[in-house]
Amino acid sequence: MKHTSNTKIAFAIVALVLAVGRGGHAQGQQRNLSEQYRETADRIIAAAMADSGGWEKLTHLTTQIGNRLAGSPQLERAVEWAAEAMRRDKLDNVRLQPVKVPRWVRGRESAEMVAPFQRPLAMLGLGLSIATPRAGITAAVVVVTTFEELDALGREKVADKIVLFDMPWQGYGRTVRFRSTGHSRAARLGAAAVLIRSVTGRSLYTPHTGAMEVREGELTVPAAAITVEDAAWIHRLVDSGKEVRVKLHMEAKLEPDADSANVIGEITGSEKPDEVVVMGGHIDSWDVGQGAEDDGSGCIAAWQAVALLKQLGLRPRRTLRVVLWTNEENGLRGGAAYRQVVGANIGNHIAGIEMDGGSEKPLGFGFGISGVDANSNDPRFVAALEKVQQIGKLLEGIEAGEITRGGGGADIGPLMRDGMPGLGLRTAGEHYFDWHHTNADTLDKVEPQNLRKAIAMLAVMGYVLADMPERLAEAAK
Amino acid sequence: MKHTSNTKIAFAIVALVLAVGRGGHAQGQQRNLSEQYRETADRIIAAAMADSGGWEKLTHLTTQIGNRLAGSPQLERAVEWAAEAMRRDKLDNVRLQPVKVPRWVRGRESAEMVAPFQRPLAMLGLGLSIATPRAGITAAVVVVTTFEELDALGREKVADKIVLFDMPWQGYGRTVRFRSTGHSRAARLGAAAVLIRSVTGRSLYTPHTGAMEVREGELTVPAAAITVEDAAWIHRLVDSGKEVRVKLHMEAKLEPDADSANVIGEITGSEKPDEVVVMGGHIDSWDVGQGAEDDGSGCIAAWQAVALLKQLGLRPRRTLRVVLWTNEENGLRGGAAYRQVVGANIGNHIAGIEMDGGSEKPLGFGFGISGVDANSNDPRFVAALEKVQQIGKLLEGIEAGEITRGGGGADIGPLMRDGMPGLGLRTAGEHYFDWHHTNADTLDKVEPQNLRKAIAMLAVMGYVLADMPERLAEAAK
Repeated sequence: MKHTSNTKIAFAIVALVLAVGRGGHAQGQQRNLSEQYRETADRIIAAAMADSGGWEKLTHLTTQIGNRLAGSPQLERAVEWAAEAMRRDKLDNVRLQPVKVPRWVRGRESAEMVAPFQRPLAMLGLGLSIATPRAGITAAVVVVTTFEELDALGREKVADKIVLFDMPWQGYGRTVRFRSTGHSRAARLGAAAVLIRSVTGRSLYTPHTGAMEVREGELTVPAAAITVEDAAWIHRLVDSGKEVRVKLHMEAKLEPDADSANVIGEITGSEKPDEVVVMGGHIDSWDVGQGAEDDGSGCIAAWQAVALLKQLGLRPRRTLRVVLWTNEENGLRGGAAYRQVVGANIGNHIAGIEMDGGSEKPLGFGFGISGVDANSNDPRFVAALEKVQQIGKLLEGIEAGEITRGGGGADIGPLMRDGMPGLGLRTAGEHYFDWHHTNADTLDKVEPQNLRKAIAMLAVMGYVLADMPERLAEAAK
Repeated sequence: MKHTSNTKIAFAIVALVLAVGRGGHAQGQQRNLSEQYRETADRIIAAAMADSGGWEKLTHLTTQIGNRLAGSPQLERAVEWAAEAMRRDKLDNVRLQPVKVPRWVRGRESAEMVAPFQRPLAMLGLGLSIATPRAGITAAVVVVTTFEELDALGREKVADKIVLFDMPWQGYGRTVRFRSTGHSRAARLGAAAVLIRSVTGRSLYTPHTGAMEVREGELTVPAAAITVEDAAWIHRLVDSGKEVRVKLHMEAKLEPDADSANVIGEITGSEKPDEVVVMGGHIDSWDVGQGAEDDGSGCIAAWQAVALLKQLGLRPRRTLRVVLWTNEENGLRGGAAYRQVVGANIGNHIAGIEMDGGSEKPLGFGFGISGVDANSNDPRFVAALEKVQQIGKLLEGIEAGEITRGGGGADIGPLMRDGMPGLGLRTAGEHYFDWHHTNADTLDKVEPQNLRKAIAMLAVMGYVLADMPERLAEAAK
């Protein structure tokens, strides 16, 4: 993805010719964004790499508030605290955007092997699962590793059984579909319940929760994740000819929607206040651990990036807005509500940046335009990508300027689908999915220096996108 | 530790001069052990690297029997199964050596934070801990990171409190002392109970158990390990000025000694049956997980190494014995009982090899003689080390021949203290302490290829030590 010097020279010539051809815009147009913003970016980076405010905020959120599932009192405590603290940061127009969110409550839950051995199994019910009957479900286990194996077994071998998906880890995207739709595919064949091997590549006897896809009118059964270790054990026992029986008990239920809110603050643009660059992460989390990396670090880094620019007295031409979205994990209602309020003014949303992949060794950003293939030569995409890459160069000093094709995020998804270009902060992320959606997603997993780097990246990228003379890309038609 | 060519040539000349000086021994003496045993070693290695019997045994032990704490029915099931299977392997003189072992029973146990938040804390009581009163112990937590900090607090600040040792990970040897003696040091200052941060460098919300040192007449209190995550959390809460209160409940108790046994089998020596090379690992484990790496892989690898030599029809001059020691984890009674039976014949124990550090990327062996410093030029040590290094060369083809100074093991410790040279199988062991003494010590952590390599190493080292014309070292005086 790096450009050779020749490519850069060629691009500069083309840019110059185009600028002259249009009759010459502001002087700034003819200077590369890297040159234009070098000094400001260096100042921002120096401040971010010395910052302690981001770490203090993340410490408060994780240590004093803890995990924050939609509908929980902790989430609302986090929302209120964030709005207050944003006001203390002197951001402009700090406000709560009301959002009704689902309120799924885990309740008591347990799983145990009852034959051929008696042993408790560590587990976490999957988000949006229904409850078992009060006495639990006790049944023999059938083990499959693919949906094809499940379908091949058919109703005769699946009915009234507990189906265990012991699928191998093939990366998050490919593996998570068993968590998403395993319950309904097994329910269609008459299964009594579903267990899945936790969606992770590494385990220290750690169950991982996460949302199921629940569609109205579709069959479902109680579903829970067990550990990689116990899934492998049950699989081996079944392969050795033993009948394995498990008792699953879950009190999970969906209560009426609860009140929540997106937390919004901004630096109002000095020249084009109606044009907006939006960035953020989600303030909600699963109901385990502390939601430190998913997505404490993301929402705090975006917030602190804007707070830092404010401290530095840097006011971009356009409005730079931070949004702490609510209910990303089990509803995406925060992202949808934000899109709805933007309404027909979507063309004024210049770009969106999301950080929701943890802070482990930040590398750069992925850049995407919805509907445009990442390998495309689409001229609107390529021209914008070039600009993002010029901004990326400003981050090379902290080894965080790599810009790759394709990017975005779940909360900016609704904006991107209507044409807004989007960026996702990228990291090495070697261990992100080890602690994702578990009790291990805690502050000790976050390196303060990585958090600072993410703050620097978001501050530089957000500031330049909001301040650069021309908008990043023409508004979509 | 590797020799340059010059050193090797010099050594060969010295050896030759010495041999000639002594009037010339058997022809074999003048050939390096590497040359002498190359063909046999290659044959052993080829068989071991194609072996499936070791993996099948480890699968049975971990999957069908499970964890095996001293005094548990599973340990006795494992002992009986191993003796039967050794007989099926046609080892000579298969026998059980009776050992009385302590029977510590965990019982029900739990820990929860009750202030400033209400939340369960994952925990494992420490082995040999006493119980709490039936109603549990509820008290404020004081946090220390060193014994010096504890002593500086003194009785006034420690009495009736729960002491949390949130000591940083400094490698197992330096960190484990808080698990060993934290309980008694806090008890002396009047503490109500002790919690320790689990003894590990990596955690996915995983508590680690392990033994406390309990000395008769010494004060003690109930003691448990919590996770790295919760220890860090409590520490931060206390540092922020909050009073953290925890409720600890443990039913742990020490019951009367139970019957157990070391499992012993051998290939009787063809020329000097009374001289013995002993090798093994321990068959007991903690009462969590499956004891797959601690020490399933070790005891199975040693056993399978001997079984494989038997299959190949290789009978060394001396007796090669495998011992599956019992009760390594919380008493070392198996190793002591074995030493007792050897009695005054200790001089006939040529060498001992122990594998009790897991099977992750085996590298070679550490070699030690008790009472001889690892950097010593002691001629008995240096001469024996040279021979072990010659045998190590036979394992270079599988990259497992690195011989380092210093080695041994807990179960061969009593033999070594009376002069027997000892070897410990060494591994890269990058993750061994991540799953050590936890529910995550399960078969999925063992790579079949690593297990095969360990079998090859033990078979070659054990065979050559038992067969080589001269004994490894003169018997200690």
